[in-house]
Amino acid sequence: MVKIGIIGYGYWGVNILRNFMNTPQCVVGKVCDQRSERLALVQKSYPSVQVTTSTDELINDPAIDAVVIVTPVFLHYALAKKALEQGKHVLVEKPFTASVAEAEELIELAQRKNLVIGVDHTFLFTGSVQRIKNLVDAGELGSIQYFDSTRVNLGLFQPDVNVIWDLAPHDISILHYLVPERPVSVICTGQSHTQNRLENIAYLSVNYQSDFMAHFACSWISPVKIRRILIGGDKKMCLYDDVEPTEKVKIYETSYHVNTEEEKHRMLVDYRTGDIFLPKIAQKEALADMTANFINAILDQTKPLVDGLAGLAVVQVLEAAQQSIDQGGKEIFLK
Amino acid sequence: MVKIGIIGYGYWGVNILRNFMNTPQCVVGKVCDQRSERLALVQKSYPSVQVTTSTDELINDPAIDAVVIVTPVFLHYALAKKALEQGKHVLVEKPFTASVAEAEELIELAQRKNLVIGVDHTFLFTGSVQRIKNLVDAGELGSIQYFDSTRVNLGLFQPDVNVIWDLAPHDISILHYLVPERPVSVICTGQSHTQNRLENIAYLSVNYQSDFMAHFACSWISPVKIRRILIGGDKKMCLYDDVEPTEKVKIYETSYHVNTEEEKHRMLVDYRTGDIFLPKIAQKEALADMTANFINAILDQTKPLVDGLAGLAVVQVLEAAQQSIDQGGKEIFLK
Amino acid sequence: MVKIGIIGYGYWGVNILRNFMNTPQCVVGKVCDQRSERLALVQKSYPSVQVTTSTDELINDPAIDAVVIVTPVFLHYALAKKALEQGKHVLVEKPFTASVAEAEELIELAQRKNLVIGVDHTFLFTGSVQRIKNLVDAGELGSIQYFDSTRVNLGLFQPDVNVIWDLAPHDISILHYLVPERPVSVICTGQSHTQNRLENIAYLSVNYQSDFMAHFACSWISPVKIRRILIGGDKKMCLYDDVEPTEKVKIYETSYHVNTEEEKHRMLVDYRTGDIFLPKIAQKEALADMTANFINAILDQTKPLVDGLAGLAVVQVLEAAQQSIDQGGKEIFLK
Amino acid sequence: MVKIGIIGYGYWGVNILRNFMNTPQCVVGKVCDQRSERLALVQKSYPSVQVTTSTDELINDPAIDAVVIVTPVFLHYALAKKALEQGKHVLVEKPFTASVAEAEELIELAQRKNLVIGVDHTFLFTGSVQRIKNLVDAGELGSIQYFDSTRVNLGLFQPDVNVIWDLAPHDISILHYLVPERPVSVICTGQSHTQNRLENIAYLSVNYQSDFMAHFACSWISPVKIRRILIGGDKKMCLYDDVEPTEKVKIYETSYHVNTEEEKHRMLVDYRTGDIFLPKIAQKEALADMTANFINAILDQTKPLVDGLAGLAVVQVLEAAQQSIDQGGKEIFLK
Repeated sequence: MVKIGIIGYGYWGVNILRNFMNTPQCVVGKVCDQRSERLALVQKSYPSVQVTTSTDELINDPAIDAVVIVTPVFLHYALAKKALEQGKHVLVEKPFTASVAEAEELIELAQRKNLVIGVDHTFLFTGSVQRIKNLVDAGELGSIQYFDSTRVNLGLFQPDVNVIWDLAPHDISILHYLVPERPVSVICTGQSHTQNRLENIAYLSVNYQSDFMAHFACSWISPVKIRRILIGGDKKMCLYDDVEPTEKVKIYETSYHVNTEEEKHRMLVDYRTGDIFLPKIAQKEALADMTANFINAILDQTKPLVDGLAGLAVVQVLEAAQQSIDQGGKEIFLK
Repeated sequence: MVKIGIIGYGYWGVNILRNFMNTPQCVVGKVCDQRSERLALVQKSYPSVQVTTSTDELINDPAIDAVVIVTPVFLHYALAKKALEQGKHVLVEKPFTASVAEAEELIELAQRKNLVIGVDHTFLFTGSVQRIKNLVDAGELGSIQYFDSTRVNLGLFQPDVNVIWDLAPHDISILHYLVPERPVSVICTGQSHTQNRLENIAYLSVNYQSDFMAHFACSWISPVKIRRILIGGDKKMCLYDDVEPTEKVKIYETSYHVNTEEEKHRMLVDYRTGDIFLPKIAQKEALADMTANFINAILDQTKPLVDGLAGLAVVQVLEAAQQSIDQGGKEIFLK
Repeated sequence: MVKIGIIGYGYWGVNILRNFMNTPQCVVGKVCDQRSERLALVQKSYPSVQVTTSTDELINDPAIDAVVIVTPVFLHYALAKKALEQGKHVLVEKPFTASVAEAEELIELAQRKNLVIGVDHTFLFTGSVQRIKNLVDAGELGSIQYFDSTRVNLGLFQPDVNVIWDLAPHDISILHYLVPERPVSVICTGQSHTQNRLENIAYLSVNYQSDFMAHFACSWISPVKIRRILIGGDKKMCLYDDVEPTEKVKIYETSYHVNTEEEKHRMLVDYRTGDIFLPKIAQKEALADMTANFINAILDQTKPLVDGLAGLAVVQVLEAAQQSIDQGGKEIFLK
Repeated sequence: MVKIGIIGYGYWGVNILRNFMNTPQCVVGKVCDQRSERLALVQKSYPSVQVTTSTDELINDPAIDAVVIVTPVFLHYALAKKALEQGKHVLVEKPFTASVAEAEELIELAQRKNLVIGVDHTFLFTGSVQRIKNLVDAGELGSIQYFDSTRVNLGLFQPDVNVIWDLAPHDISILHYLVPERPVSVICTGQSHTQNRLENIAYLSVNYQSDFMAHFACSWISPVKIRRILIGGDKKMCLYDDVEPTEKVKIYETSYHVNTEEEKHRMLVDYRTGDIFLPKIAQKEALADMTANFINAILDQTKPLVDGLAGLAVVQVLEAAQQSIDQGGKEIFLK
C-alpha cells in the first residue's frame, strides 16, 4: 500500500485526486493547497483525506510515501527536490520542470536515493495513442517520414508561460513515445498580442539527422478547437483527431504518384488512393492508467512509462524552442 | 475585341481556353502546345481555334493581341519577355516567374511598352475570398492578428519545384490581398523524401513590423486533403475551409478570457464564446471573372486585379522562402 | 426546504441524486433500490443519505415531502399512486406511465390532493431546446411546417419496451413544447429482430388538422449515432444536431424555387439559398434546471415546466403508436 | 454500331448526350426538343448531330436504331410505345412510367418485338453501389435486416409529381438491386405546403414477408442536403453517405448488447462496438457505364442491368405509395 500526498487542488488536481482514490494499493493521505476554499471541497467529497495549506507539512509527513505535484510549472523543481530529499517518490505534472538543469538535478537526486520520478504526460495512456504505438511498432506505417501536430483553441491564456510551454508538451511526449530517434535542433517562431509578451500563437519545427521531421502548431487564439496529429509513413499514414468523439484514429493506405497529365487530372478529382481503416479504440480514462502505472512502479521497483528522463526529453525541446523564439527563429541545437 | 493566344494546353490550359471562349469582347485565335495529341483535343472541341506547336509562330502572329502563358514556371519569363517585346499583353499562370529579377524585368518592360501584365491568382476571384475581403475591409474582424494557412493533399508531386512553390502561391496571394502590410522576413523549414531533394512537406513563417504574423503549412504527403485558412482579428475571427462544399466561410464572435480556475473549467467544456455566422457565398466559376478582368484591363486601360507588381510580391516571398529552406531555416529579409 | 426520497438508483438515478444534492432548498433524505450493492454506492458517496430496499418504507416516511421515481416504466403508476395517496409530491422519470388511463388517474388524484406531479423530460431544459423555443416563439421561423426527428444508435436494447417507448419520448416532448397544436392521429411502422418481438427499429408519423406534420425515426440497430431534429418554417428552418459538441443549433435562411431549367441547374450545384446563423448556446447541465424547477414548483405552488398533463400528452402519442404498430400501421386517432 | 436518337435536351439530356457521344460502338444521330434554343446548344457543341422539334420525325427516322427518352414522366409511355412500334430499342429516364399498367404494356410490346428496354437508374452504376453490391453478395453483412434511406434537399419542387416520385426512385432501385426479396405492402405518409397539393415531404415504409423492412424519407424542404442509406445486417452494417466527397461507404463491425446496468453506462459513453472499414471506391462517371451497358445489351442481345422488369418493380412501389398517401397512409398491398 502506497500513501500519497497531493500538492495543488486546481482543475487538474481534482482529476488526480479522484483517480488516486480509485487506484488499487494506494491511499491518499493528505492534500495541500494555499486556498482554504479548495481544501473545503476536498473535505466535502472525501472526508477521510487530511488537508493542509503547508507544503512542508505534507512533504515532511512521515506517513506519506509519494508526493504528487500538480502546481504551476515554476514550483515543480523546488517542491520535487524537497520531496526527494525527504525520501519520497514524486509524480510531477507536465511539463516536468522549467529548465533542463532543474530536470537533470532532480533525476540525479532520485537516482542517488533510489526513488521513482514519474511525469504526468497523460496522453500516452489514452487508447488512441496506445493503438497508434502498436501500429507503429508493428511496422504497419513503414518508415516514419513526418509528425505534424496542430493543437489550437480559444481563449485560455496562461498567465506565466507561453503557448508552446502550455500546449506542446502533450504532442512532444507523443512524438518521443512513437519515434525513438532523438531530435537534433529546433526552430520556433511565434507572436504575442498581449502586454506580457508571452506568445499566444507559435510554430515549432524539430529537425533530425534522418529525413524525418516534426512540426507543432500551437495557438490560444483559434476560433475552432483542433487537436490533430498526422503521422506519415512510407507504407501507411495515420490521422489522430482527438476532437472526434469516437472516430479518433484513421489509418490510410496511401501511395505517391508521379505527376503525369492524366494522373494529375485523376488525382485532383479523387485524391484518395486506398482503403481507410478505423480501429476500435478502447474507451477508458487515461489518467486511471497513469496513476496505476506510477503506483506499480513504486511497488514493483520498475520504471514508470514516463520517467524523469522522458520528462527531461520534453523539457529539452521546450527550452530550445524558447531560446529559438527569443532569438527570432534562430536554429537551436539540442545538447 | 481582344484576340488572344494561349501557350500550354495541359490540365489548367483546358480551363483557361474554355473560359476565354466564353469571355465577352474576346476571341481565342490560337493555341500552342508541344504535344500534337493535346492540339487534336483543341480542334475537336473548338474547330474555330487555330493550333500550332511553335511558340514563336503564336507570339509573332500579328493578329494576336495578348498571350496567355500556361506552362511550367521555368518557361514563364522567356515566353512573357518575347511576347511583351512583340507588343502583346500577357497573362501568366501563377507563380508569375521563377525569380524576383525575372519579374522585375518583365514589369519594367511592360511599363515601358504600356502593356498589361496579369497574373492568374484565380483564388482571389472566388466568392469566398471576395466575401472575406469585404468583411476585412469593413473592419468586421477588427485589427488582424494572424493568418494561418494549411494546404495539404496526397501524392501530386511536381517534378520541377518544391511544395512551397506549388501550393503556397494561392495562400500568399490571398494574404497580400487581405492584409496591406508588407512582410519583413521569412523563415522556412521542410523536408524531402525523394531523390530529387525537392521538399514535399514545408512550413513557412512570415514576419512583419507589427504584431501580425502569417504561417503556411504545405504538404504533398498528407493522407487527408485540407485547405483551410484561419484569420484572427481582435474583434472576430474567420475560418475559410475550401474543402467544405457549401459552408466554406464561418465568422466567429470571439473573446479572450483570463485564466481563472472557474473560467478554465468552463472553457475546457465549452470553448465557444459567441455566435457563429455563415454568410451565403456566391457560387460562380472564379476563372471566368479572372479572364473577364484581364480582358477589361486591356480594353479599359486599367490595372487587372492581380498585376505584375502583385505577382512580384508573391515571388519575393517564394524566393526568400527558398533561400531560407536552403540555409536550414535561416531568417531571410525581404528587400 | 423540501425533503425528497428517490426510488431507483440505476444509471439515471445516479445523475438524479447528484443533482438533487446540489439543488437549493432541497435535501435528499432517502434512496431506495432493490440491489444492496447500489445502495452501498450511495452510502460511500453521500454518507448523510439514508438507504433502504423497501419502497414502502421510503413512501411512508413522514419526513419525506416528495418522491422521485426513477424505475422501469411499468412500476411508475403503482409507486406514484402510493406516494400521492401518502400526500407526497411526485417526480416521475419519462415516459410518465405505461398507459393513458394510468396517467389520467394519477393526474386526477394529484389534483384532488393538491399535489405536484412533475415528469422528467430533461431535454426541454437544455440550452439548445430553450434557444429554439425562443426562436419559435419570437416567430423567427414563421409558420412551422414540419418536425422531423431521427434518434438512432447501436445496441442498447431495452428488455421491456420497444424502441418507440424508449427513444421517442425525448422528441415528442420537444415537439409538444415547441408546437402548441395537438396531434389528431398517428401511423407507426416497425420491425423486430429479436425473440421478444419488441421492435428495435420503428417510424412514427403524427398527423394534424393543419398542414403541419411530424415524423420520428427510432432505432437501436444503427451503426452510427444520430440525434437530429429538423424544424421547417415558412421563413426559416432549424437544424438541431445533438451529436455536435458545440455547434448544435443552426438556423437557415431559406426560400423555395420554382423549377425552371436554369434554376434547377444552379440549385443542383448550390442548394444553399441564404445565410446560416449558429447562436451561442448556454452550456449547463439540463438536469440541474429540471430538479430546481420541480422543487420551486412545490415551494411556490406553481406548475412545473413538465406537469402531469404534459407527461400525459406524450403517453397519448406513445399508446396510439403502439396500437398502430400492433395493427400493421393502421391510422390511430387520438381521443 | 448503334445509331441513337435522344428526345429531351434539358438538364439531364445534356449529360445523356455527352455520354452517348463518348460511348463506343454508338453514334448519336438526332436530338429532339420542343425548344429551339436548346437545339441551338446541341448544334454549337456537336455540329455532327441533327436536331428536330418533332418527336415523330425522330422516331420514324429509319436510320435510328434506339430512342432515348429524357422527358417528364407523363410522356414516357406514349413516346416509348411509338418507338417500340417502329422497331426501335428504347432507353427511358427513371421512373420508367407513370403507372404499372403502362410499364406492363411496354414490356409486353418489347418482348413481342424482341426489342431492348433499358431504364436509366444511374445510381446502380456508381462505384459506391457496385462496391456495396459486392459486399452484400459476398455475405459480408450477413442477413440484411433493414434498409433506411434519407434523401432530402431544399427547394427544387417538381411541378408535376410529388417528392416520392421525384426522389425515391433512386433509392428504391438500389434497394431492389441489393435485396432480392420482393416487397409485400407499403404505407406512405406525407404533406403538401403548396397549392397544387403535391407532397413536398413524405415517408414511405415498405414491408416484407420476412423480418426485413425498408424506409424512405424524402423532402424538398430540408435546409440541409442529406443523401444517406443505412443497411443493417446481422454481421455488419453499411453507411452510404453520398454527400461525402470521398468517404462515401463505411462498413461497421457491430454487435448488440443486452442491457445490463454496466453495459448501459459503457455504451452511452462509447457506442462503437468494433472496427470501421472504408473501402476505396472507384471514381468514374456512372452514366458512362449506363450508356455502354445499354448499347452492349442491344449489340449482344443481352438484358441491360436495369431492364423493363426492373423499371416496373420501382413503379409498382411508387404507384402503391401514391395510393397509400392518397388514402391517408392506408396499407396498400402490391399485386
